[in-house]
Amino acid sequence: SVQEPGVVKLAVIPGDGIGPEVIAEAEKVLDAATAGSGIRFEKTHFSLGATRFLETGDTLTDADLEAIRGHDAILLGAVGGVPGDPRLKDANIERGLLLKLRFELDHYVNLRPSKLYPGVPGPLAEPGDIDFVVVREGTEGPYVGNGGSIRRGTPHEVANETSVNTAYGIERVVRYAFDLAERRRKKLTLVHKTNVLVHAGGMWQRLVDEVASEHPDVAVDYLHVDAATIFLVTNPGRFDVIVTDNLFGDILTDLAGAVTGGIGLAASGNINPDGTFPSMFEPVHGSAPDIAGQQKADPTAAILSIALLLDHLGLQDEALAVTRAVEADIAGRGAASRPTAQIGDAIVDRVQA
Amino acid sequence: SVQEPGVVKLAVIPGDGIGPEVIAEAEKVLDAATAGSGIRFEKTHFSLGATRFLETGDTLTDADLEAIRGHDAILLGAVGGVPGDPRLKDANIERGLLLKLRFELDHYVNLRPSKLYPGVPGPLAEPGDIDFVVVREGTEGPYVGNGGSIRRGTPHEVANETSVNTAYGIERVVRYAFDLAERRRKKLTLVHKTNVLVHAGGMWQRLVDEVASEHPDVAVDYLHVDAATIFLVTNPGRFDVIVTDNLFGDILTDLAGAVTGGIGLAASGNINPDGTFPSMFEPVHGSAPDIAGQQKADPTAAILSIALLLDHLGLQDEALAVTRAVEADIAGRGAASRPTAQIGDAIVDRVQA
Ligand SMILES: CC(C)[C@H](C(=O)O)[C@@H](O)C(=O)O
Ligand SMILES: CC(C)[C@H](C(=O)O)[C@@H](O)C(=O)O
Repeated sequence: SVQEPGVVKLAVIPGDGIGPEVIAEAEKVLDAATAGSGIRFEKTHFSLGATRFLETGDTLTDADLEAIRGHDAILLGAVGGVPGDPRLKDANIERGLLLKLRFELDHYVNLRPSKLYPGVPGPLAEPGDIDFVVVREGTEGPYVGNGGSIRRGTPHEVANETSVNTAYGIERVVRYAFDLAERRRKKLTLVHKTNVLVHAGGMWQRLVDEVASEHPDVAVDYLHVDAATIFLVTNPGRFDVIVTDNLFGDILTDLAGAVTGGIGLAASGNINPDGTFPSMFEPVHGSAPDIAGQQKADPTAAILSIALLLDHLGLQDEALAVTRAVEADIAGRGAASRPTAQIGDAIVDRVQA
Repeated sequence: SVQEPGVVKLAVIPGDGIGPEVIAEAEKVLDAATAGSGIRFEKTHFSLGATRFLETGDTLTDADLEAIRGHDAILLGAVGGVPGDPRLKDANIERGLLLKLRFELDHYVNLRPSKLYPGVPGPLAEPGDIDFVVVREGTEGPYVGNGGSIRRGTPHEVANETSVNTAYGIERVVRYAFDLAERRRKKLTLVHKTNVLVHAGGMWQRLVDEVASEHPDVAVDYLHVDAATIFLVTNPGRFDVIVTDNLFGDILTDLAGAVTGGIGLAASGNINPDGTFPSMFEPVHGSAPDIAGQQKADPTAAILSIALLLDHLGLQDEALAVTRAVEADIAGRGAASRPTAQIGDAIVDRVQA
């Protein structure tokens, strides 16, 4: 997706809360990792999020979207204001900005690796080896915004939310998940709730079965979403690639982040594999306004998102250098907490070493 | 809900797999706990589930439902055949039997207590004190079966699933949850995904806010479902009463069962608080056909469901006797596993002591 040879046009959306702090570190690491690569990153910063909304009343204008579309990739920090801020009552930054980007840029693969790095304390007594990837569908399901209500605010209100699922949308993300499983430990688990959501679930199961027949070497199984949460805490090592819908993927990846030591380490890619639109890389965590501006946030998830970005751009060596630097930093972490910039600097040093 | 004084008409649905084994023990404990109470339980066994379906082709006939409706309460083991059994391909025992009972009998409160009993090994390194109750809505939401598909089986298939939510349905379960919180540690957490499912989520939030104003002494907070799964593994002690929708409740309670030592201990009540229809008590676990008939199943969840049943019938002393007996049995468990009947007998002995 690099249009001018040797130049990557990167849209940077630091966002709200701790977003700008962690993105500053991620950018440092990106610069360090690509310094000698011959690739130049041309960065454009976009001021988007609750802060921008409070200043201008805009969430994501058509002009913003058009400008972002002209880039090769996007790096996003976190968006969202202080919970309960009355001025944001009618703004839905999540839907109007984050989900709008995912939908408008056809990010149909929401890629969320989960790995327990050596040295990271997690909540499980016997975590075992944890190393799996959730391939979460990003453009359909209960997230489409196909809902409404009647008699709103009255005792007779009825509110519906419709999950919309298409064979087109499911097949493409299932194919991506199988391709990924082929390059990993060749195990794929479909997670859904086929016994209750029979229509959507039935279609997911059918398409997984169909694509599975083209991948005889990939072992396929199925779990109901409720059972999947059990295994995530009792035997997370059983998973390699999980493929699931937008809502179940949202839930499973937060839980996965927790069991691997906290969402301060969880990176994600919102990917448009076709390359029609720029893909977007972001930490799984939110904007955490309560600790913003205090250098308390861990930039590791944002930095690991840089590794996913580099990998996506075909810069595998640079991606690996970032991952290795993060792994080394994590392994050497003591109990003392370090300021955001100090963690970033330590990882930059390791990348340069 | 006891119609003839001193007589409780109990419908017993042992079901499939390990259902009959665990229900046999639960019945023993029920008999022991109520022996001197002056209450006589008149039990009717119903043969329902995959086994019955395979024999007769029926899942739940109108006559079955009518007969069950004539009882004061229901005890259910577990239903569901061997996964992948081709003869069950077009049967959906879950929807046609279990969910049909919950919906037809207006079980709008699905009550699922989670408690970490002393002596129980769980997956968390530092579980802390875990003692909360999930009040899961039981008759609405994504479970209503309001879905369908077009162009089924083709590359152009579209499958929708509609979550239907009413103010009537939400308010009543929210009221139940607040009343429960008043009798407990006075803390209530709403779990939903209001930033994405804005219509249903907005109504849940509004009704919780409204009912909260009548309960100034109950501390209320809100968590997105994804964040709630994080807290369930990092700080489950923060929860007292959780109120949530049908699907989120399904997911959270399996996870809660896992963090409190396995769903072999998790009991539940499907409650119609109005008393219009009989309430139904069942272990959260499924029929586990792989270990059926081998005396390998733990009957504790079924026995704890007896405690919920007794409590519901107003037999608080008897309920407490069962809970105490289970707690004592659990505290004395070693690493060795005991046959199903042996666990039941040990708990009966303690109830009688
Ligand atoms: C902020 C929210 C809309 C978002 C989601 O639900 O996808 C977040 O939880 C995530 O997982 O990226
Ligand atoms: C069997 C299934 C339909 C059921 C549900 O989803 O409610 C089960 O998981 C439960 O939690 O009781």
